[in-house]
Amino acid sequence: MSEPVVGIVMGSDSDWPLVQKAADTLKSFGVSYEVKVMSAHRTPDVACAYASAAEQRGLKVIIAAAGLAAHLGGVVAAHTVLPVIGIPMTGGPLNGQDALYSTVQMPGGIPVATVGIGNAVNAALLAVQILGTADDTLRQKFHAHKASMRQKVIEADAKLNASLN
Amino acid sequence: MSEPVVGIVMGSDSDWPLVQKAADTLKSFGVSYEVKVMSAHRTPDVACAYASAAEQRGLKVIIAAAGLAAHLGGVVAAHTVLPVIGIPMTGGPLNGQDALYSTVQMPGGIPVATVGIGNAVNAALLAVQILGTADDTLRQKFHAHKASMRQKVIEADAKLNASLN
Amino acid sequence: MSEPVVGIVMGSDSDWPLVQKAADTLKSFGVSYEVKVMSAHRTPDVACAYASAAEQRGLKVIIAAAGLAAHLGGVVAAHTVLPVIGIPMTGGPLNGQDALYSTVQMPGGIPVATVGIGNAVNAALLAVQILGTADDTLRQKFHAHKASMRQKVIEADAKLNASLN
Amino acid sequence: MSEPVVGIVMGSDSDWPLVQKAADTLKSFGVSYEVKVMSAHRTPDVACAYASAAEQRGLKVIIAAAGLAAHLGGVVAAHTVLPVIGIPMTGGPLNGQDALYSTVQMPGGIPVATVGIGNAVNAALLAVQILGTADDTLRQKFHAHKASMRQKVIEADAKLNASLN
Amino acid sequence: MSEPVVGIVMGSDSDWPLVQKAADTLKSFGVSYEVKVMSAHRTPDVACAYASAAEQRGLKVIIAAAGLAAHLGGVVAAHTVLPVIGIPMTGGPLNGQDALYSTVQMPGGIPVATVGIGNAVNAALLAVQILGTADDTLRQKFHAHKASMRQKVIEADAKLNASLN
Amino acid sequence: MSEPVVGIVMGSDSDWPLVQKAADTLKSFGVSYEVKVMSAHRTPDVACAYASAAEQRGLKVIIAAAGLAAHLGGVVAAHTVLPVIGIPMTGGPLNGQDALYSTVQMPGGIPVATVGIGNAVNAALLAVQILGTADDTLRQKFHAHKASMRQKVIEADAKLNASLN
Amino acid sequence: MSEPVVGIVMGSDSDWPLVQKAADTLKSFGVSYEVKVMSAHRTPDVACAYASAAEQRGLKVIIAAAGLAAHLGGVVAAHTVLPVIGIPMTGGPLNGQDALYSTVQMPGGIPVATVGIGNAVNAALLAVQILGTADDTLRQKFHAHKASMRQKVIEADAKLNASLN
Amino acid sequence: MSEPVVGIVMGSDSDWPLVQKAADTLKSFGVSYEVKVMSAHRTPDVACAYASAAEQRGLKVIIAAAGLAAHLGGVVAAHTVLPVIGIPMTGGPLNGQDALYSTVQMPGGIPVATVGIGNAVNAALLAVQILGTADDTLRQKFHAHKASMRQKVIEADAKLNASLN
Repeated sequence: MSEPVVGIVMGSDSDWPLVQKAADTLKSFGVSYEVKVMSAHRTPDVACAYASAAEQRGLKVIIAAAGLAAHLGGVVAAHTVLPVIGIPMTGGPLNGQDALYSTVQMPGGIPVATVGIGNAVNAALLAVQILGTADDTLRQKFHAHKASMRQKVIEADAKLNASLN
Repeated sequence: MSEPVVGIVMGSDSDWPLVQKAADTLKSFGVSYEVKVMSAHRTPDVACAYASAAEQRGLKVIIAAAGLAAHLGGVVAAHTVLPVIGIPMTGGPLNGQDALYSTVQMPGGIPVATVGIGNAVNAALLAVQILGTADDTLRQKFHAHKASMRQKVIEADAKLNASLN
Repeated sequence: MSEPVVGIVMGSDSDWPLVQKAADTLKSFGVSYEVKVMSAHRTPDVACAYASAAEQRGLKVIIAAAGLAAHLGGVVAAHTVLPVIGIPMTGGPLNGQDALYSTVQMPGGIPVATVGIGNAVNAALLAVQILGTADDTLRQKFHAHKASMRQKVIEADAKLNASLN
Repeated sequence: MSEPVVGIVMGSDSDWPLVQKAADTLKSFGVSYEVKVMSAHRTPDVACAYASAAEQRGLKVIIAAAGLAAHLGGVVAAHTVLPVIGIPMTGGPLNGQDALYSTVQMPGGIPVATVGIGNAVNAALLAVQILGTADDTLRQKFHAHKASMRQKVIEADAKLNASLN
Repeated sequence: MSEPVVGIVMGSDSDWPLVQKAADTLKSFGVSYEVKVMSAHRTPDVACAYASAAEQRGLKVIIAAAGLAAHLGGVVAAHTVLPVIGIPMTGGPLNGQDALYSTVQMPGGIPVATVGIGNAVNAALLAVQILGTADDTLRQKFHAHKASMRQKVIEADAKLNASLN
Repeated sequence: MSEPVVGIVMGSDSDWPLVQKAADTLKSFGVSYEVKVMSAHRTPDVACAYASAAEQRGLKVIIAAAGLAAHLGGVVAAHTVLPVIGIPMTGGPLNGQDALYSTVQMPGGIPVATVGIGNAVNAALLAVQILGTADDTLRQKFHAHKASMRQKVIEADAKLNASLN
Repeated sequence: MSEPVVGIVMGSDSDWPLVQKAADTLKSFGVSYEVKVMSAHRTPDVACAYASAAEQRGLKVIIAAAGLAAHLGGVVAAHTVLPVIGIPMTGGPLNGQDALYSTVQMPGGIPVATVGIGNAVNAALLAVQILGTADDTLRQKFHAHKASMRQKVIEADAKLNASLN
Repeated sequence: MSEPVVGIVMGSDSDWPLVQKAADTLKSFGVSYEVKVMSAHRTPDVACAYASAAEQRGLKVIIAAAGLAAHLGGVVAAHTVLPVIGIPMTGGPLNGQDALYSTVQMPGGIPVATVGIGNAVNAALLAVQILGTADDTLRQKFHAHKASMRQKVIEADAKLNASLN
């Protein structure tokens, strides 16, 4: 794969089964990415160094997945000027409500672009849209993605109605 | 101002006092923008036409502010491949919790990049970061923005400590 | 079946197992209906066209079922003068709380008649009540429905007390 | 005024300042209504008698406004086959969240068509839509209402943009 | 069993497996009770008649269990001067939070004595305490109940510590 | 006043303006009471001693008002067999939601009869109902209270309708 | 084991499977502890006596685990000057949200150091940190703990990346 | 003042009016402290350096106050082995609920000792208790603090009862 333009970071390798959907989505758009396990609290120096170097290394967007008091997105955003997409993960007794608040309610000055709880696919699609602002081909692929989604809904409707008659 | 690259849309002109902070922030970065009042429910055709034409008109990012069952971000996102940033507005008895859920919990396939409740400044900063992925000058301005924020905190610390002695 | 007077729309065919209860309830009242899969975000044009044509096509009521940031009810309501009944669906980590807010907290001007989370039966019964405002026979059937429910509770009480003695 | 077709009931006369918006909205559509103060808990016999007689008296729709453990809508719905629209009122420390749950989460069999917290206007508009299912003139008025709302948004947009230039 | 002094009512016989714990607890204190299935919405007349006659029939306390928009406690309380104990039942996607609000947030004038969500045992114990205000024997039994609970905790502590050594 | 049968305890004298409504309500029923400021955390020995002696001193019911992590009701209930009524107080950023959970969600074995957040009047009325289980006169007074409330609603209805014509 | 410096108390022996993680963590740091089952409500005298004697017995820190209206931490804190760490336990329909509020929202004057819902490991680690303020060896062990956690994350990252290539 | 043993850090100088209560409380116990404004997101290097050096500089406890997606406590805890006390600040539309979750729901391994929302006094008292584990004088002062609080409640009770007679 060519040099990664999207960095996917997650607080624990136990997040991978869900975060993998973000990776698979990026792959389907031909967007190069890298995957890193790093923790805002257990490896803060790694997270700090990674975010600080990201722009220089050629990354364009960072996706950060974390649960509970999900600080990873905010910590990464504190150290880079790249757009950071946060995925609040479920897990724990509050089922992601804590992670949602911890990710989206960033103070003025340092945004984290938050997607739905556990919605790794949307995180990747948002990264594609961001890259697409300067990439006509990627925007065309997103048009195709939308057309494909549209077609699936139309087929589901046809199939359901066929089954009802 | 040159042709707008960011479209700021809001569900009601009563949102303007807060949304204006997004406009002011974009202006401070020299990012051209346009401001539109349109409603997902009262002028759905306008919202649909606006979103559908946005890419062709040269917009790169759309910021959508709406409160209550805030559908505007999602409706706009449904009609464009551009990244859509959602500002869940306060207002109403649930104080923006409803707007947060309605904005961030988009189904798989159609992301809305959500910032904190009422955080118009962060919406604009996120737009700048997105545009910065293909604009070195803008990224440098964001570095300067971060340096300025940093300086203000350091000065606030100095000032507070001076007042305590 | 005669021309449908109730349109049941849902965001995904995965909603059908629960939404089917609405269809079955309408059938038990002899109310004609049609079922459509359409998405506010994946097939916005379909949803828009469907809602816009509904009145002309002879529909009287539309039932819309959607989960997460459930915009379908609101999008349909934006394009029709017919009463729209929203079923906030469970699904996702917030278990329907997000869908409830997204459905019920509509802005002034465009109501969505919201029933309980996942309560497809009540959505259909509400449609029957609405149609019953101009249909004596339907109102009589609803009286019978209430009498039947009443009877079941009385029998349940008798049965429980019998088992206790 | 002609015989009322909509009954507006509220748990306390202190609800009137907000509920009056429902009355005013009905009046603007030329829909006749009556207003009653009655309580599910303080005058349960009145509420029961009112709901039981409503159909016979020619009412078509009942709007019930109540706050806190808002039982009024459910109690009325228990005694009639007419559609009942519930307005969860703010008031009290939970700001209407309690009233929303108490109104919308009705058990299967007895729906209450719930509108947004404190949204008396939407309650009235929903009543108009319900009556409109059998009244072409009312539906035309609703089309005009939507056109008027649309026009106001367009004018607000024009006015805001004029003020920005 | 002698004439019942506690009436246990529930909205559905499906509540019985949990409500049975209230009955068993009353039995263990030698308090006579009766069990009734009745619904605030499906058999409002039964609930009304039951509550209205309760005092005359010799009941002293009524325990009402209901879920979702749990109106049963409030409806019963509206028709009697006896103390009414409400058990908010789990069930449904909000897991009893709706039933808690619908039970406890009664308007001024008509209290429902609310116990924890699904806590049928505590409902019965509260009934015993209420009856105990005029019954020395019952209060002595409650002292014994407390002593027994105390003993069990002390034994659990001893057992756990024994297992750790 | 004769020997108190109801003990009203509150965590802080700042609770008095609201708790006073409980006292006034008891007075209006001719129920003797005493008022105490004591804290589960600041004067735990006082609370413990008070609750332990209450039965002996002739109290029949204890009303406990507390906010935040409102432990007072539970602590009192732990030391007495008398029924304890808890008033979750507003105050603090969670507006009584914390106090509601801390009061109502008691573990099995030790109930606290919880009334609505800040609803001191209902706490007193519940005490009256409890005492009324063994006091015909008090029950008659409660019937009168209900009749009076009923009359006020009917008058409010008449007055509102008079003002509308 | 030497004389315990940490007391671990829990409301029920059913909490032990989770609370055991706190014990195991303390053991891994070589911190002596004792384990007690005691209830704020069922054995209030035991809890009171335990907390009152703790300082004299040589305990330095108390960890209290409780669910629902979790009063144990607060009751213990009311009777000691030692730092009390509260673990809000899951269990019950509110999944620990009630226990969190009941533990953390203590009134001014009596703090309970609250860790995440069900997070027994963090309770123990906090106890270690507290003891470490006067124990260089313990602080060194905590440094080693942090290094070990760091290493595990780095290895997880390496392993995941190895599996991806 | 002697070398500080408690570091009080806050995300913004606008937090000072409330945080000052922590400082005042420490002062009243004769505990030396320092006050710093630093932001997890605007001056992450400062926060990191401060936390990393704290142990060496002789600090024993760090108090961190932050609102919204309050990451400051977690970021500081990531870089030190000292106990970190988090004050979730109110401010913003969620009134501190977001800050509470972001502070208390730390992942296993890195605790933040959380006090009530906005409860700066309790943060300081907890710091005193922690320091008191190795300081008999401080523990004696805490006993005096408890005695003083106790006395105030007893006086408040006396004063209220005097006013009632």
